[in-house]
Amino acid sequence: MSMAQNIYDDPDFFRGYSGLPRSAEGLSAAAEWPWMQALLPPLDGARVVDLGCGFGYFCRWAVSHGAIAVHGIDLSQNMLGAAAAATDDARITYERQDLDALTLPLAAYELAYSSLTMHYLTQLDQFLATVAAALVPGGAFVCSVEHPLYTAPTSPAFVADAAGHATWPLDRYLDESPRTTDWLAPGVVKQHRTIATYVTAMLRAGLTLTAIDEWGPTPEQIAEHPDWSLERERPPFLLLAARR
Amino acid sequence: MSMAQNIYDDPDFFRGYSGLPRSAEGLSAAAEWPWMQALLPPLDGARVVDLGCGFGYFCRWAVSHGAIAVHGIDLSQNMLGAAAAATDDARITYERQDLDALTLPLAAYELAYSSLTMHYLTQLDQFLATVAAALVPGGAFVCSVEHPLYTAPTSPAFVADAAGHATWPLDRYLDESPRTTDWLAPGVVKQHRTIATYVTAMLRAGLTLTAIDEWGPTPEQIAEHPDWSLERERPPFLLLAARR
Repeated sequence: MSMAQNIYDDPDFFRGYSGLPRSAEGLSAAAEWPWMQALLPPLDGARVVDLGCGFGYFCRWAVSHGAIAVHGIDLSQNMLGAAAAATDDARITYERQDLDALTLPLAAYELAYSSLTMHYLTQLDQFLATVAAALVPGGAFVCSVEHPLYTAPTSPAFVADAAGHATWPLDRYLDESPRTTDWLAPGVVKQHRTIATYVTAMLRAGLTLTAIDEWGPTPEQIAEHPDWSLERERPPFLLLAARR
Repeated sequence: MSMAQNIYDDPDFFRGYSGLPRSAEGLSAAAEWPWMQALLPPLDGARVVDLGCGFGYFCRWAVSHGAIAVHGIDLSQNMLGAAAAATDDARITYERQDLDALTLPLAAYELAYSSLTMHYLTQLDQFLATVAAALVPGGAFVCSVEHPLYTAPTSPAFVADAAGHATWPLDRYLDESPRTTDWLAPGVVKQHRTIATYVTAMLRAGLTLTAIDEWGPTPEQIAEHPDWSLERERPPFLLLAARR
């Protein structure tokens, strides 16, 4: 069976990733976090699983906002080690799993959360079926992925058109297959899928779509971070929420 | 109140539009029709409203596939005249309405259908609320629009990249506002919206999303129409289905 690349345990990649604002500073440094937060159900008394938990920022946030048990899962030993070292809260547990062969207990969580992880997975349908079965009826799945417009192109970098305006050279949008880019380290493999494929896979897993957001920065965010303005030409993140 | 442009009653546009394969030959000449058809509920005994019915091809198809009453609505007198002239089936009725100020009877239809029309509308939320209220509980809404990737760019035409490959110069994807293009006639105005906005508007209207398809041609279609191959770089149509 195909499985996701464990690039986060590549020393060069991990060093680079650790230096990103969202790695060093946590959720508040993630531009899309307020929008993800808006998709969350009330966490009071909730049991939560975080799929691709990374450094554990969301796990720690969730217990500080009422969750009674948070289970963080990741493939990277580097990330899990850092996550475990950052807390001694007994409500938080970590586990190493390949999310392409994910197993979860049945009807055990009020919330499944997955931030910027599913574009690495090769077994999306199986992953979503496992997530759906792990939710209690009425439970929520809230996730983000790199936007398909971001992953699609052969050359994913803005180019100037004849008039000097930045355009995103889109191609291969409907060609759903791996994309290899040099991001923090050479040869990072992501799975390009369309928006329709992500949403259809969620519906096929028996989930009901409750929200979709193609995130881009607000004027206020651009005023603070002028280099983000290009993201409005082509959104970087796709946010989805669904209910079992 | 803002309303949609009645470009279909512009003589030059209407002449050009009438010459398109889908206008001259009907549904079978519309590349995406088999996929639209796959989204339809059983029509036996169904009451149907077609919003933006054009020449009435779908209205006539629906009664020939079991619908007991089909109501076609369009803004264009040219189109309605041609549609009315093409049938004397008493199960089919036509009406002129501006879809930006649509009124429909409540809980009166098993199917609302709208092909390549909503990107002209300025009042999407109001339109979808009217559609939702016009469906019986469990009734279906099946629609297509020009894909947001098609409507977004400042210059919506493929360009060759440095290696000579065709790329679609995407920009302004998150800038939801009118776009004016010269398609069949100068100054055709369409409303650019994101995928998320279309889907969110449907959810907000109380509909449950049941299907989403970003349509592109199959290898078989490309073999028959080689000039369609570019459409796989950037899908031309977005298909959506929902249930009340």
